[in-house]
Amino acid sequence: MKQAIKRWGRRLALILSLPAFLVVFFIGYVVIKVATYEQLDDAAHMQSKQAYLSALAEQASQNMARPDVVVILFDDLGYGDLGYTGNNMIKTPHIDALARNGVVLENYYAPSPVCSPSRASMLTGRLAPRNGLTAVPFPTGHAVDRLNRLFNNPVRLPREEIIIADVLRATGYHTAMVGKWHMGDHDQSIPTEFGFDHFFGTYHSNDMTPFNLHEGRHGAGETLAVAAPVDQTQLNQIYGDKAEEFIAAAPRDKPMFLYFAHNFPHVPLYAAAHEHGRSDAGLYGDVVQGLDDTVGRVVASLKKRGRLDNTLIIVTSDNGPWWEGRASGEAGSRGRKGETFDGGMHVPFIAHWPAQLAPRVSQAMAMGTDLLPTLLQELGLPAPNDRLLDGRSLSATLRGGDSPHEALYFYGAGTLMAVRDRRHKYRDAKPIVYATDPISIPIWPRLGPFLFDLKDDPQEAYDVTNRRPEIAARLKAVLDARNAEMSENPRGWK
Amino acid sequence: MKQAIKRWGRRLALILSLPAFLVVFFIGYVVIKVATYEQLDDAAHMQSKQAYLSALAEQASQNMARPDVVVILFDDLGYGDLGYTGNNMIKTPHIDALARNGVVLENYYAPSPVCSPSRASMLTGRLAPRNGLTAVPFPTGHAVDRLNRLFNNPVRLPREEIIIADVLRATGYHTAMVGKWHMGDHDQSIPTEFGFDHFFGTYHSNDMTPFNLHEGRHGAGETLAVAAPVDQTQLNQIYGDKAEEFIAAAPRDKPMFLYFAHNFPHVPLYAAAHEHGRSDAGLYGDVVQGLDDTVGRVVASLKKRGRLDNTLIIVTSDNGPWWEGRASGEAGSRGRKGETFDGGMHVPFIAHWPAQLAPRVSQAMAMGTDLLPTLLQELGLPAPNDRLLDGRSLSATLRGGDSPHEALYFYGAGTLMAVRDRRHKYRDAKPIVYATDPISIPIWPRLGPFLFDLKDDPQEAYDVTNRRPEIAARLKAVLDARNAEMSENPRGWK
Repeated sequence: MKQAIKRWGRRLALILSLPAFLVVFFIGYVVIKVATYEQLDDAAHMQSKQAYLSALAEQASQNMARPDVVVILFDDLGYGDLGYTGNNMIKTPHIDALARNGVVLENYYAPSPVCSPSRASMLTGRLAPRNGLTAVPFPTGHAVDRLNRLFNNPVRLPREEIIIADVLRATGYHTAMVGKWHMGDHDQSIPTEFGFDHFFGTYHSNDMTPFNLHEGRHGAGETLAVAAPVDQTQLNQIYGDKAEEFIAAAPRDKPMFLYFAHNFPHVPLYAAAHEHGRSDAGLYGDVVQGLDDTVGRVVASLKKRGRLDNTLIIVTSDNGPWWEGRASGEAGSRGRKGETFDGGMHVPFIAHWPAQLAPRVSQAMAMGTDLLPTLLQELGLPAPNDRLLDGRSLSATLRGGDSPHEALYFYGAGTLMAVRDRRHKYRDAKPIVYATDPISIPIWPRLGPFLFDLKDDPQEAYDVTNRRPEIAARLKAVLDARNAEMSENPRGWK
Repeated sequence: MKQAIKRWGRRLALILSLPAFLVVFFIGYVVIKVATYEQLDDAAHMQSKQAYLSALAEQASQNMARPDVVVILFDDLGYGDLGYTGNNMIKTPHIDALARNGVVLENYYAPSPVCSPSRASMLTGRLAPRNGLTAVPFPTGHAVDRLNRLFNNPVRLPREEIIIADVLRATGYHTAMVGKWHMGDHDQSIPTEFGFDHFFGTYHSNDMTPFNLHEGRHGAGETLAVAAPVDQTQLNQIYGDKAEEFIAAAPRDKPMFLYFAHNFPHVPLYAAAHEHGRSDAGLYGDVVQGLDDTVGRVVASLKKRGRLDNTLIIVTSDNGPWWEGRASGEAGSRGRKGETFDGGMHVPFIAHWPAQLAPRVSQAMAMGTDLLPTLLQELGLPAPNDRLLDGRSLSATLRGGDSPHEALYFYGAGTLMAVRDRRHKYRDAKPIVYATDPISIPIWPRLGPFLFDLKDDPQEAYDVTNRRPEIAARLKAVLDARNAEMSENPRGWK
């Protein structure tokens, strides 16, 4: 009896010690977090952003042959989900045609394995820690959003960031966005407060509630466009209609930029009734074939506009596949969305621009952050001089040149997990985390570092450090240097 | 000021509410757990086990042509890590020779994606929930072990379980084990209290501290065999030496059973100095080539013993690869150790027995639990009549017949996650968990169910329920029936 009491006493003490520890730890964490959280919408860089955009505006009319630009970004589409990457269960003839007649980059990476940081990085040319958005925003009023606000964690794209639409609008483009923003829905971090003349779409993922469709004009706010709840079986049709509308209505006296960021094939998946069963790959395949139809509609609209030859169409994905989808073609990739293994970030990339780019398949490595610098070079525009960009122009690469990068950096949300050069990927001795900051779940203590030979071992299965210590050391130095640079100047202000 | 106080008040309330909830939840959990934990070493089945083994003993001398049996089990070896499964970075000539001259099962699964449940299932012919070991034991005195004991959670193989060694020893085999037990180190759940005449090896994984090597004789306990700490660079050599010794010393007037459960290529990896760099796949590859050498040594010893022709050699792995290693050959598998996707459980399997088995490659599906029933049939022995077995005899399958299974069950530790038939795998709408019971971490809420076509989609990328609803319904019924059966009679007592 005495011993049983003693035993239960020990059990209770243990049961209580864990939460006691958690409380102390969590209070400390929160105090530090709240006290140190960087202020967004930094006045000095808001000002230098405006100055940069005004200077661009002065150069606006000089080049009359400027291309239309259409960026089609899919959500969670895997590398192996398309016909041109080897899939024979899903038919994607329109995307395949763009691949056949365009430049295919076979070593292209999304700039983050997670949705929002990936988008922010692609649009700003700056990797997620620099652009200030390393986490995933939830709808205003959602429990996570309330929690974030309570703890001074404003998860949104800082307004001092310069996105592709800002640049193109400043130089005279008509700019429109259809689809998923996912970089905030509050404090003016919305598309029409950045450089979009016109926005139709959603602020969030299609698995977040409420899932609403908004519409708006530059500087005039955005309002509910479709009565809630949205019937997602119609979403692809609605987005296709809107994209067609935008292209048809785009002024003919200026170039046009359309950022078409589809919500699919992110879960939950929906297809119109008549689309069910058309692919051999279940509803996921049906959805992807629907996306391909929509790409076909966009291309047809661009043909009607009469400038397809001088239109740069980009087709890519924001990260690797999540619940369904193939992370790879035939060779097999390790990991999926959320991981910095290739399966989480290695995605399809097509650049179709008949007037400028001869069809080719390139092995040059590239990343989503390269898009903004590429557009700057194609349009003969200067980069902003108040901030560092991570991207490099692919102008030469797309014409058969080599990669502009010595190394690519793989951030799992805010943490640098790996770097790669042409052949090797060096993975730091970090826990593998289910990557969203601030809630990173390490699923195992530190292991590694690993040096993977992506040429012989695309599955990232074997650490070859013992055979190539000098390469491991070189890439470790690259990684360490980057970490040192980032800890001194995380936002990359010059 | 007032508002700031209010704000901090809300923050604090929130900070405190989480641990308060945790305490209440955890106390409730513990009380239920402690109160309901099933007693192990159930007297009735200890008795019926003894009765069964005694009955077997009476049949012992009838069959003089009984084969020697050698089961070689690797730890965390991936399907794609061997020459015969398509790897060209790692050379495994000895294993490849066994594959060439034996029966290769290409749809063989380890019975669990985690170490200890997999071993317990293979040795007992009963899946982890039935055999009573769904978690991973830690060394006595380790914090996790102390916690387990404090909360009445005796993580070990119950002594009433009947393992292959019990059966073979009862029928007159000389039985020995070299390597990793990992089914408990206390309360007599040790190899020499089950049916091993001789044990040399470790109770735990090579990443657990202390990592000690023990030796013992049947019924006489086990003692430290090698001074601690063990130099793991020598482990493969030591194990090879011991296996050779056992085979050389085995009595010549009776058949022999050797269970050789190697600790490698489980992390941390070690190779002898002269072995470094011999493979093209880094230290992992070097280690696997060392394992292949050891297989060669075992085969040579068996040749010396003069009965290789009538020796059944099994080579397999306890689950898919973990930090390194290939989950697949060329086609690519989804998932790794810990997951019930194929990458976590689909492993190599070779049965080499020249006297009985013509070389062949079979697509018939099989699981580790089949080993005990197969041996019973090969030796003409009855199954125990007090308990259900999950395995089925592969005797016909290994001679060119079809699979004995209508369906295979995929348990993530204690939870039934999926079932498969010849072509399809049905995955229940369960959270994907990092699978160890009782600490299962669900990394996302329920999603699914999924029906994967393993023939066209070996990567388990596409749910084809919408095209084949009747197959999904049939497999769901199989899964539900199993869950119902298990909830009524979890240990499968007859």
